[in-house]
Amino acid sequence: MAINTALTERLGIDHPVLCAPMARVSGGRLAAAVSQAGGLGLIGGGYGDQDWIDTELAAAGNARIGIGFITWRLEHFPDVLDRALERQPAAVMLSFGDERPFADRIKAAGAVLIAQVQSLGQAKRAADAGADIVIAQGGEAGGHGAHRGTFSLVAEVVDALPGIPVVAAGGIADGRGLAAALMLGASGVLLGTRFVATEESLAPDPAKRAVARESGDVTVKGSTFDKARGFTWPEPYALRTFSNSFSERWEGKDLPETAIAEFEAAAARADMEIAPVVAGEAAGIISDVPSAIDLVPRIVAEAEQKLRGAAAFCDTP
Amino acid sequence: MAINTALTERLGIDHPVLCAPMARVSGGRLAAAVSQAGGLGLIGGGYGDQDWIDTELAAAGNARIGIGFITWRLEHFPDVLDRALERQPAAVMLSFGDERPFADRIKAAGAVLIAQVQSLGQAKRAADAGADIVIAQGGEAGGHGAHRGTFSLVAEVVDALPGIPVVAAGGIADGRGLAAALMLGASGVLLGTRFVATEESLAPDPAKRAVARESGDVTVKGSTFDKARGFTWPEPYALRTFSNSFSERWEGKDLPETAIAEFEAAAARADMEIAPVVAGEAAGIISDVPSAIDLVPRIVAEAEQKLRGAAAFCDTP
Repeated sequence: MAINTALTERLGIDHPVLCAPMARVSGGRLAAAVSQAGGLGLIGGGYGDQDWIDTELAAAGNARIGIGFITWRLEHFPDVLDRALERQPAAVMLSFGDERPFADRIKAAGAVLIAQVQSLGQAKRAADAGADIVIAQGGEAGGHGAHRGTFSLVAEVVDALPGIPVVAAGGIADGRGLAAALMLGASGVLLGTRFVATEESLAPDPAKRAVARESGDVTVKGSTFDKARGFTWPEPYALRTFSNSFSERWEGKDLPETAIAEFEAAAARADMEIAPVVAGEAAGIISDVPSAIDLVPRIVAEAEQKLRGAAAFCDTP
Repeated sequence: MAINTALTERLGIDHPVLCAPMARVSGGRLAAAVSQAGGLGLIGGGYGDQDWIDTELAAAGNARIGIGFITWRLEHFPDVLDRALERQPAAVMLSFGDERPFADRIKAAGAVLIAQVQSLGQAKRAADAGADIVIAQGGEAGGHGAHRGTFSLVAEVVDALPGIPVVAAGGIADGRGLAAALMLGASGVLLGTRFVATEESLAPDPAKRAVARESGDVTVKGSTFDKARGFTWPEPYALRTFSNSFSERWEGKDLPETAIAEFEAAAARADMEIAPVVAGEAAGIISDVPSAIDLVPRIVAEAEQKLRGAAAFCDTP
């Protein structure tokens, strides 16, 4: 069983399935599991917490993994990138900001440069920066993202960047989505929400169960939870989470200190009526919490079945 | 050349390609052309302007076409539906509101009931109302729509409505998109923006050229143009258009009479810096203004090529 694309070739992996580097969710164990299963796992370097990153890089053991960073944040903590590069990751993924100040260092260290973009304009910038692989992420994705939908963004970026493998992200969680992404011209998929609900994910258990249970209808995009955590994200990014009583009460308003204290206490006890389930619309097609080791081959097998059966839609020639 | 699905079977058409019933864009000539080319064209019954509908039904001649209505608006003009049913359309499509008050009349008249939905919740309501076909429309679509993205919405609705053909809409404009939609489990596609930019469309020529020229990055969603036209749309719907100087100036603000007068004058002369180019993100993968007669087979041929080649992604068994 294998699906071969420009992405598997460029990364030297068996399956065109990447695990998104989700801050505080994609730890070393999850990243290693995805890589062990034939995809590529990326540790969520996130906001640049050096201790957390050190712990998770260690937890990955000697697995061949990548690491991802929030680019606008990395500008404030450039040492974090250098230290990660010493570990010789297979790939470094930059999301949400200008890749150019970091691209040369990443490529000089021998890592594949993966750039995640949310618009055609950003895709062109990433190509100019020398990105080896571009993720076209639609706004239905969980966590941070922008406005455009996955379907046309992927096709438009594929057309604009000949020769660069394009990976589809946002709203994808199974083999159907992988097969569909390949039809659009993508070379693979990057999954976030799907890997939130795995045994190896560092998401709180109530969040994993919520992802497996709820429809994609329940997500909203806003800035409340970023405010509560003290992060000021630049335009045009916002955070997609499940709607809960905290987001309903505070979205669009200023957060008083009492609300922030309430939020912090709730986050500590994983109370998901106040703390956010950070997940995308793909939650609606997720119904279990498997091991990533089993999940990756399951996705690939389903995609293979779809791809091998595709010609049957057509009349016999 | 043919792609056979539950949709082509249910509608008795050659190709699983529907033309969205776009108000004031999808006239009789466009609808007839799409049906003549093997898909199904739907006249845009829109806001219920009886004279316009009569003219366009006549313009369709004896072509086998459908007609679509804005459901919440139809509640104020129920006679419009009865008159349309006298024409014996092949299908009636209801969008943006509760299908139940109209479903029985449509089915009793022998028309196929197509319901367009924007969430899983709405999809279940449409199934309960007896919809024969459900369109799952993602928010990247042009014109009115809601929040969810096409990619996961389609897959989730397919899972929830076994036995009902589901059609993908939003961000789709070519054969790649049709092939991808089939991989997600849809039985076909409904295209809006793609048919805006055709010879037969009633959109102003500058709008057609803008759709063929611009990236999907230029669209925005808002309520300014609805306000300018005097339409009060219910939640959660908003209008996706190209951003222009009028939307940039007025979005989120009250429109004074002078602005409305400026808008009306600009619309009359097709000045698209003030009047809206009503189009979705799929504009970014559209680059010409062909005849719908040529376009439909082109889309199907591209999809066939993708579907027949899909197994090549997999290792030989």
